[in-house]
Amino acid sequence: MTNYKLIIAYDGTRYNGFQRQSKHPEKTIQGKIENVLSQLFEEDIQIIGSGRTDAGVHSKGQVCNFHTKKHLSEESILSYMRQYLPQDIAIIKVAIASERFHSRYNVVSKRYSYTVDNGYFADPFALRFAYHVPETLNIEAMQDASKLLLGEHDFKAFTSLKSKTKSTIRNIKSINIVKNGDKIIFTYEGNGFLQHMVRILTGTLLEVGLGTRKIDSISDLLANKTRCEAGPKAPSHGLCMEKVTY
Amino acid sequence: MTNYKLIIAYDGTRYNGFQRQSKHPEKTIQGKIENVLSQLFEEDIQIIGSGRTDAGVHSKGQVCNFHTKKHLSEESILSYMRQYLPQDIAIIKVAIASERFHSRYNVVSKRYSYTVDNGYFADPFALRFAYHVPETLNIEAMQDASKLLLGEHDFKAFTSLKSKTKSTIRNIKSINIVKNGDKIIFTYEGNGFLQHMVRILTGTLLEVGLGTRKIDSISDLLANKTRCEAGPKAPSHGLCMEKVTY
Repeated sequence: MTNYKLIIAYDGTRYNGFQRQSKHPEKTIQGKIENVLSQLFEEDIQIIGSGRTDAGVHSKGQVCNFHTKKHLSEESILSYMRQYLPQDIAIIKVAIASERFHSRYNVVSKRYSYTVDNGYFADPFALRFAYHVPETLNIEAMQDASKLLLGEHDFKAFTSLKSKTKSTIRNIKSINIVKNGDKIIFTYEGNGFLQHMVRILTGTLLEVGLGTRKIDSISDLLANKTRCEAGPKAPSHGLCMEKVTY
Repeated sequence: MTNYKLIIAYDGTRYNGFQRQSKHPEKTIQGKIENVLSQLFEEDIQIIGSGRTDAGVHSKGQVCNFHTKKHLSEESILSYMRQYLPQDIAIIKVAIASERFHSRYNVVSKRYSYTVDNGYFADPFALRFAYHVPETLNIEAMQDASKLLLGEHDFKAFTSLKSKTKSTIRNIKSINIVKNGDKIIFTYEGNGFLQHMVRILTGTLLEVGLGTRKIDSISDLLANKTRCEAGPKAPSHGLCMEKVTY
């Protein structure tokens, strides 16, 4: 058996998220990729992703792996996939991984970005990739609030109520909030993120930026763990999975 | 009468170009804008653009003007237009211009950019705004060739055969070709550009970059003025009208 590793970039706009759904597999990134790989290898290929991304969320560095009986060169896999995948899914790299490499279990850290378009009018060139917030945002206040989120905490207040994850404890290594022209880019790096966590963190920090939430309420959220006291989840299209580290 | 000036940005992907067409005015940028302005001013508003852009071409700084009997504040026009225009057309500025300002006749110079995606795979985040050329491009050769195009020349070889313009003489002030990651950005500044001129210039320079055209053939094109000897016109979606100067 050969264990192949893929690095994938995609514009998530047209898809119902990364994970294959039994009803409409062709509307998911995973379904599209498995379809092409199964044709190429003439066997039923199942890929393992480093994690799901929600409908509308993008990626510049999703990592997957899959096992096959057949051995094909990385070059030939790459060129076949480029030919048959839609243009909004790009295979950046194909490599042969060690036999035991598992793209979900072996994750050491993940980096996500969230882009806010803070211009007075919505930038027509960023509609698919940035959340438009025309109001004035206090960046320093958001930066101060973000420091309270660093380190190991129970992030139960910052995940979907529907989530079935056993442990809601995660470790955030860094949060950077940088202004670049009219865009404000939030970058989160941590050992893992719960369902909707980056979007709820961003929605909560934006409340601080708008002045409708006090900075020290962040500590209360981490202590009280109540989802309804945190901010709303920011829309999916501003979010991008940037990099997975092993 | 008040003479209003607008600065407009648009993602041209969904439109049949800037200029209103009698058949499907709502498929053009001009048609969309005139529609909203006519509603607001309750009279038939006709806007004058600094120039046409082809179907699929974008703009970050198209300039228009229009005359009205009614006087409304810039603020109220801006907020009404933001509310009723689709998100892929953004009004950057509304200002009252001098009575005699004409957005086409008064142009001093125009700047266009053309973006080539020179990555091995097409960047899924740039599909609408960059032309994917995966082959190796010799940037220095393109820069050398571009120098031969500077100054006043008859650009007859670089315009559509269908064009009815009387004079095909134009003056190109500068051409910059810059690599930024996998993107190569061609920036053209001149006193005016003929129909398809920037796209044909880019298509011709790309042949030089690919090594299929000699640099000194550029001088022959300017001397012989034969369209069929120039390169193909590069696709519309890489082109963007950046700035109009008065």
